[in-house]
Amino acid sequence: MIDPGPAPDLDTLVRLATTVQGRFRARGLTLATAESCTGGLVAHVITEVPGASGHFRGGVVAYADDVKGSALHVPAALVHSHGAVSAQVARAMAEGVRAAIGSDFAVAVTGVAGPDGGTPSKPVGLTYVAVAGPTGMEVRRQVWSGDRRANKLASARAALELLLEAVQRVGDA
Amino acid sequence: MIDPGPAPDLDTLVRLATTVQGRFRARGLTLATAESCTGGLVAHVITEVPGASGHFRGGVVAYADDVKGSALHVPAALVHSHGAVSAQVARAMAEGVRAAIGSDFAVAVTGVAGPDGGTPSKPVGLTYVAVAGPTGMEVRRQVWSGDRRANKLASARAALELLLEAVQRVGDA
Repeated sequence: MIDPGPAPDLDTLVRLATTVQGRFRARGLTLATAESCTGGLVAHVITEVPGASGHFRGGVVAYADDVKGSALHVPAALVHSHGAVSAQVARAMAEGVRAAIGSDFAVAVTGVAGPDGGTPSKPVGLTYVAVAGPTGMEVRRQVWSGDRRANKLASARAALELLLEAVQRVGDA
Repeated sequence: MIDPGPAPDLDTLVRLATTVQGRFRARGLTLATAESCTGGLVAHVITEVPGASGHFRGGVVAYADDVKGSALHVPAALVHSHGAVSAQVARAMAEGVRAAIGSDFAVAVTGVAGPDGGTPSKPVGLTYVAVAGPTGMEVRRQVWSGDRRANKLASARAALELLLEAVQRVGDA
């Protein structure tokens, strides 16, 4: 596994979110977020940038598993079969929030931030980010090696980076 | 109007969220958040504290006005009559997220973070925080004088402080 390196600081994420906003607004696209382990950090960073209301419609922080069902329509059977921290649930969260909030793109994050909650097959730091959009769905798996704060920051960066890649393809299409 | 003083830093908010978690967990109570101008910051701070899943169920970032309706069941007529930044909408957001997520307490924030969006009657920095819980509903109005980042931090502190006061009364009852 490639060492993901040190976690970014908040200012680095805000710069990334500024680029995201520029690409979304240039294309007239809208965005929603669904967060588990990042607990609102992705939405916070997006809304640090003035003008965020031009593309960001809103998000859901689905911390308890049943909230993934009630607010994001993630089937309970999916959580039961694959676990809340899985590619399948990340995808369902992205699709769910895109439909619930009504946006062109949606990004979702689910992971084990730590310090508790890790298991041999799902260690602390395991994170899935997913992006749903008009060009389809993408999901990426990573394992961070930091503490809770660092893992949240690294996961938020991964979410914003996947989003940038996906929105770039809309312009290239 | 009392000068609210300088905005807190993130670590100060995390300490406050640690106290919130202690009081919620000691009483076996659960929490949900509804955020507009703070854009996920309140949920982010709450989930910086290890063990947050013991009391925090989730939240909604309702950035676009119509998301306040679709995700939080805030009546469009209320937003139309009083404006999205009003005591009435803050209350409806708190009630709405408490019902949607299913928690004992809910805290809501709506305000004008800036730099744009201010009007003579609703200037940049105007913020309403509301708490809904088993002991009723409370709302507080404040006007911050900082920039966007400072106003978000100050609003998040006001939300956590109002929450602490409200949950304290459950123990005193």
